[in-house]
Formats: sequence, C-alpha cells, structure tokens
Amino acid sequence: MRTIRITPATEQDVPLILDLIRGLAEYENLADQMTATEEKLRATLFGARPAAEVVLAHDESECAGYALFFPTYSTFLAQPGIYLEDIYVKPHSRGKGIGFALLRHVAKLAMERDCGRVEWAVLNWNEPSIAFYKGLGAVPLDDWTAYRLTGEALENLAHPR
Amino acid sequence: MRTIRITPATEQDVPLILDLIRGLAEYENLADQMTATEEKLRATLFGARPAAEVVLAHDESECAGYALFFPTYSTFLAQPGIYLEDIYVKPHSRGKGIGFALLRHVAKLAMERDCGRVEWAVLNWNEPSIAFYKGLGAVPLDDWTAYRLTGEALENLAHPR
Repeated sequence: MRTIRITPATEQDVPLILDLIRGLAEYENLADQMTATEEKLRATLFGARPAAEVVLAHDESECAGYALFFPTYSTFLAQPGIYLEDIYVKPHSRGKGIGFALLRHVAKLAMERDCGRVEWAVLNWNEPSIAFYKGLGAVPLDDWTAYRLTGEALENLAHPR
Repeated sequence: MRTIRITPATEQDVPLILDLIRGLAEYENLADQMTATEEKLRATLFGARPAAEVVLAHDESECAGYALFFPTYSTFLAQPGIYLEDIYVKPHSRGKGIGFALLRHVAKLAMERDCGRVEWAVLNWNEPSIAFYKGLGAVPLDDWTAYRLTGEALENLAHPR
C-alpha cells in the first residue's frame, strides 16, 4: 500500500519550500508576483516568531507537495480558525490523494486546536481544485469579495503627504 | 476640531466589544451566525495567547466603532500581512471619518510591522463600503473565491467514519 507521510518542514527545507512555492506560482500564472527568497523565507518562517506553519507531503521517498497555513479568528464564533494560504501538489504526483492527505492533516489540526473553520481562496478558473474542495463539503463564500491594500496605496493611507 | 482617538481594547471592554460585534452582525444581516459570548471573547482575545487585536475608536467621549485584525502571511512575498476581520462604525457615528481613522491606524501598524498587505472581505451588496475602500486604492481580488470548511464537513474530513 502506498504511504503518504505529512511532516512539519524545518529550516533545512527552505530551498525545497521555495521551489514548491515557485511551482504553485507558476501553476497559478502568478510567477510575476513572486519576490520570495530563501533568506526571506528563513527569516519569516523559521525565526524567533514563525509567521506560518509549513508541512511537506512525502510520496514514498519524494517530497510531492506542501501546505502552508496560519491561525485566523472569527468574531461571530469568538473562536480561532485556520487559513490555508497554500496547498500544492507537484504535477507528476497529482491524482494520488496527496492534496487530500494535506487537507485532512490541516483539518485534524483544526479540530485539535478547537478551531471552528478552515478557509482558503481559489482562483475562479481552477475547476479541478474547485470540484475537489466542493466534494469535501467546502462552501464557496460567493457573497464576499476580498480587498487588498498594498504598495503605494498602503503607504499613502499610513503616511499621507 | 473633532478628535477621533484610536486605542487598544482591554479586557474591561469585552461587553462593549460584544455589543459592537453584534452591531456589525446585524448590519451584515448575519446575526444568526453569531454565537460569540463575553466569556468566549475574554478567553480568546485577552487570555495567555490572544488570537487577534482589537482597537476602539472614540469620538469625543463615546466609543463609536472598532477594528479587529490578526497577522497573515504571503508566500509569494515571503512577508507577513494583516487581515482586517472586522471594521465597524455605529450607525449614528458614520460620515465623520471614523472608519477612515480605523483603517489608517491598521495601515500604520502594517508599515511599522513590515507587512506587505492589508486584506479584508466585503459583502458584495455593501456598496457604500466598497466605494470607500476603492477610494483608498484597495483592489478587489475578483479572480478569487474564498472557500470554507466548517461543522460536520470539517469533522468528517478530520476523522472519517
């Protein structure tokens, strides 16, 4: 029987994590938005105050994918949750249940940590992923749109000239 | 000149925070989703490991609104961000710049903390808020849809029967 193992990433995995993030960015056609480096990943994920958790999925001896997530908070529930920032499986490893194993791992952590929700965002053209998520009982929050303030707009709001 | 003050909330403010959350839930027509209590807010926001930060906006002597937020992480930037879970101004205090002051406060914190982004979600019918956010230079992430796994679906994924 095939064994998929999910393990927490360590600082030694930073080059691998950067490769996986690059793989996800390319899959999402967003590689131009990516400015991550090994140095920045090391400082933010494996320093004194890690900003997120990373787990790796191993298919036999190969690292086949990863998930990266951090805690959230719902005021309506007065309860924490988990936000799944990234979930990615390498192209040649798809269809083997690796994405399922990663998502199950995060769901288990959510239950252990008394979290009320696991949430994430999907690109609207990504039909295979959407079908996968809906099959697990995940619900699209169609009534909501995310907004982002970044770059100059963020600086101008913080420090008006 | 009118003075709007933004201050961090303390444990003594929990009853007030619950009222404000209820006000937001009613405004969003989501009061049926609200199960927060003073006890749960106290435990999750003012215990040993606060799950989010809350600031209150004071207009003269009255508390007129609040914002609640927590840190996020972007792998593409390898940099933290801030997620604004709630921003709310009491109905009779609107139009006085209080929402702007709250959002500016969060933007300043984001810059101080070397965050690349501030993000939040808006209900699609909430046109006044959408116009306000766009006026500040916030960009809608129209290509993305949020998904949520909760309740039985979350339990079933974590612990299949």
